[in-house]
Amino acid sequence: MSVPDLPESEPSLDFAADVFERACPSREVIHTVTGRWGTLALVALGEGPYRFSALRRRVDGVSERMLSQTLQQLERDGFVHRDVQETIPPKVEYTLTARGVQVAAQLQSLIDLVEAQMPDILTDQAAYDARHP
Amino acid sequence: MSVPDLPESEPSLDFAADVFERACPSREVIHTVTGRWGTLALVALGEGPYRFSALRRRVDGVSERMLSQTLQQLERDGFVHRDVQETIPPKVEYTLTARGVQVAAQLQSLIDLVEAQMPDILTDQAAYDARHP
Repeated sequence: MSVPDLPESEPSLDFAADVFERACPSREVIHTVTGRWGTLALVALGEGPYRFSALRRRVDGVSERMLSQTLQQLERDGFVHRDVQETIPPKVEYTLTARGVQVAAQLQSLIDLVEAQMPDILTDQAAYDARHP
Repeated sequence: MSVPDLPESEPSLDFAADVFERACPSREVIHTVTGRWGTLALVALGEGPYRFSALRRRVDGVSERMLSQTLQQLERDGFVHRDVQETIPPKVEYTLTARGVQVAAQLQSLIDLVEAQMPDILTDQAAYDARHP
């Protein structure tokens, strides 16, 4: 959806989102959840709460900066909750919101599908590479 | 999965894929299907076959180069079939393979979920931005 010009100052949310439209804000949200680190962070948090450093170990290969940026985007879109416990030192834990649980389940299905087909996909990749030397 | 050292020359495919492992080839495949343009191209092709130029119009905002690169990756991983008809001039049409149909359906569910929640997500984004000026 692109936000239409409105006579009132309150933006209306009475229009349908469409990721195929370049200006629709849903496109950026999809990009956040399906991004290289967004997907892995959401699926990892589907396993349970994580502190930052443990999550970083689970999402093998992510930099501190990229994980931090990814979690901020996921928190902003309401997929992830950042829970700060007022201990000394403060303990910060990340959990999925109800919306995050739904999206993580979808991403997990997608990953299961791809992982199960990896042997065939590797065969197809090799055949493609042989045809396109 | 990372490909282990093997005594024979034939790579064994007898190991489980794991996207959480940095070196697992499944991670790149997931990245191709969930990438900014991979997702939209797959879901568009879920509507039916497309010629390149029509697909480019459907996936609003993609450059010729990025769409071409995306389709090559999707073809290499066996999600998309490139059908060349020997007419003059040759007609090139893109369709989903059986594997592509499965993945496109998963991505469509994910998009439906996000699109349906966009009003709430926009509200959450505004609240987050107010808390983090």
